[in-house]
Amino acid sequence: MPSEREPLLLTPGPLTTSRTTREAMLRDWGSRDTDFIALNARVRDRLVDMAGARGSHVCVPVQGSGTFAIEATVGTLLPRDGKMLVLVNGAYGKRIMRICQMIGRAHAAIETAEDVPNDVAALDAALAADRSISHVAAIHCETTSGILNPIAAIAETVARHGRSLMIDAMSAFGAIPLDATKVPFDALVASSNKCIEGLPGVGYAIIRESVIAAAAGNSHSLSLDLHDQWKAMEGNGQWRFTPPTHVLAGFDQALAEHAAEGGVAGRGGRYSANCRILVDGMRALGFETLLPDALQAPIIVTFHTPSDPAFEFKTFYDGLRQRGYVIYPGKLTAADTFRIGCIGHVFEADIRGALAAVEEVLNEMGVNNRGRARAA
Amino acid sequence: MPSEREPLLLTPGPLTTSRTTREAMLRDWGSRDTDFIALNARVRDRLVDMAGARGSHVCVPVQGSGTFAIEATVGTLLPRDGKMLVLVNGAYGKRIMRICQMIGRAHAAIETAEDVPNDVAALDAALAADRSISHVAAIHCETTSGILNPIAAIAETVARHGRSLMIDAMSAFGAIPLDATKVPFDALVASSNKCIEGLPGVGYAIIRESVIAAAAGNSHSLSLDLHDQWKAMEGNGQWRFTPPTHVLAGFDQALAEHAAEGGVAGRGGRYSANCRILVDGMRALGFETLLPDALQAPIIVTFHTPSDPAFEFKTFYDGLRQRGYVIYPGKLTAADTFRIGCIGHVFEADIRGALAAVEEVLNEMGVNNRGRARAA
Repeated sequence: MPSEREPLLLTPGPLTTSRTTREAMLRDWGSRDTDFIALNARVRDRLVDMAGARGSHVCVPVQGSGTFAIEATVGTLLPRDGKMLVLVNGAYGKRIMRICQMIGRAHAAIETAEDVPNDVAALDAALAADRSISHVAAIHCETTSGILNPIAAIAETVARHGRSLMIDAMSAFGAIPLDATKVPFDALVASSNKCIEGLPGVGYAIIRESVIAAAAGNSHSLSLDLHDQWKAMEGNGQWRFTPPTHVLAGFDQALAEHAAEGGVAGRGGRYSANCRILVDGMRALGFETLLPDALQAPIIVTFHTPSDPAFEFKTFYDGLRQRGYVIYPGKLTAADTFRIGCIGHVFEADIRGALAAVEEVLNEMGVNNRGRARAA
Repeated sequence: MPSEREPLLLTPGPLTTSRTTREAMLRDWGSRDTDFIALNARVRDRLVDMAGARGSHVCVPVQGSGTFAIEATVGTLLPRDGKMLVLVNGAYGKRIMRICQMIGRAHAAIETAEDVPNDVAALDAALAADRSISHVAAIHCETTSGILNPIAAIAETVARHGRSLMIDAMSAFGAIPLDATKVPFDALVASSNKCIEGLPGVGYAIIRESVIAAAAGNSHSLSLDLHDQWKAMEGNGQWRFTPPTHVLAGFDQALAEHAAEGGVAGRGGRYSANCRILVDGMRALGFETLLPDALQAPIIVTFHTPSDPAFEFKTFYDGLRQRGYVIYPGKLTAADTFRIGCIGHVFEADIRGALAAVEEVLNEMGVNNRGRARAA
């Protein structure tokens, strides 16, 4: 039995989960048995409710990571003669472009720098200018930098132009409010192992029922065909192909704990407090954030690499790891940075512990200048 | 904490696993952290060794169910101008046909009845007659009926004709010997939750290295591109997209327990004993098997539905379930049948317990004629 002193994950997911969520995986389930069918229905209902989408949308889960769910949603909803406009300001926007390219669907991008939110005026102009754009994809929180994109304004613009909006809410859903009755979308995609604090292995899309009903025959893939998955699940409550039963049992427990914490407001409140303590503490140590506070989502924070030549990321990572804190071991941004997550089963004391560890490691390394390196 | 008296799954997978395998999921892992990278490498190495394929083949895992791994392998290895010949005698052969159709690749089938093994002479003739067939797909054990297909003769025939063989070994690998040095194949596909007794959520292909190296650009999908997955994993040991970390930790433990049981020989020996006891016991109760013993793989057994009008499957299923035994709740065969699995963390005493439960339920239902209904 692993000790309770296993490392705390300060990563964008997989992340640290509660012991009780993991313990929910200690039972085996028959994937076509009545108990599991009931569990699956409960999970789907809770997710639809969390999006404020009861009556308008359905939840279609799919095996795999978040990228599997994104690819499945793009392939299922975008007709073969459709065109996807992607709002890009990081790696996950680019990934949607790559998916469109791999599966052979027309696509275009409006790109902004990684520290600049999606450009809503440019979106408005593009939709007015190009009638062939049928769909728009936007990333709610771009995990590359941790930036929050203006999803309400994007949704209003897409709706006004009568196009279909897919939101990649992977690292936001469950912590940052998104209500289908206020922010119109046709699809929202997320995964089990982010703000709902479940285990990795399942993604899902919350799709407008009329849209999924009209999506037969679009998919490029059998496994990733969400129309086929939805039809089968509506029929007998079962997955078409073996689901990750234990992961789903853990997800069911994680959803119950999410509700017990006060739902999106409660979860988001804890993450915001974590983020505030992390940013303040790191700034007090001399670090600089990539983003101004107004653009920072309370999910993951990107810090500039210190200018001090004594700073070496691997030593820093290993030093934190030895002290029980695992941060994201690599960067996705163009700028020279590193990232620390503030989501997961992580509380104020954990963040304060991590800050103390950062200070210790920096002192050990002899890093005095913690501000960013500036071009000469 | 669930009780130890949870139902025993006598299904073709997901199945009953060991408590220690499930407990290996009690820790959270950073998916890009060194500990997890080492675990992942260990899992891949063990799987290659189990196939007798060290030095010739590599293991490429993929998120999702077995079908995801099958689709990924077909899409990655079959070039866009290739043609797949599928040997079909059940639902899983038909599923490979459907995958080829969905992803737009040429395909053909040689079909035999569900109680008749794949026709090797017909395969030989088809390969001689149609030079456009580049690949052959065969199912080692077709779980639809539990039939064992003549994989060695198939492999010899495909190799003699210089074509590429993909084996769907989903429900056989780990219990029925298959050694790449004796049975030549380019790809073998299986999943975590069958004879290795892991948790569902991961599939994998064991692919000849020269074949995967030449497979760039074939895939119809980003998520299911095994060439891209292999290249990334060879590079830094990491998954491209979030892996189901807990499922993989359980799989690592399940592989250790598989080795401790004596590997394929030990595992297969236990399943063969389970199967023998199950078949003998059910016959003693008056049931008839779909297959003659010579064609029966020790994985899952298909029984004819009793002719007695008092037999009603749902009552039978529920009666067994109340007594702690979950069988497969449905049939896939054309014949009127039901199935009982003999794989998983299941031992002689469990099978004997299930047989006693079957007898009790039949008596309760008043089913006297347990033989098959015969056409008048």
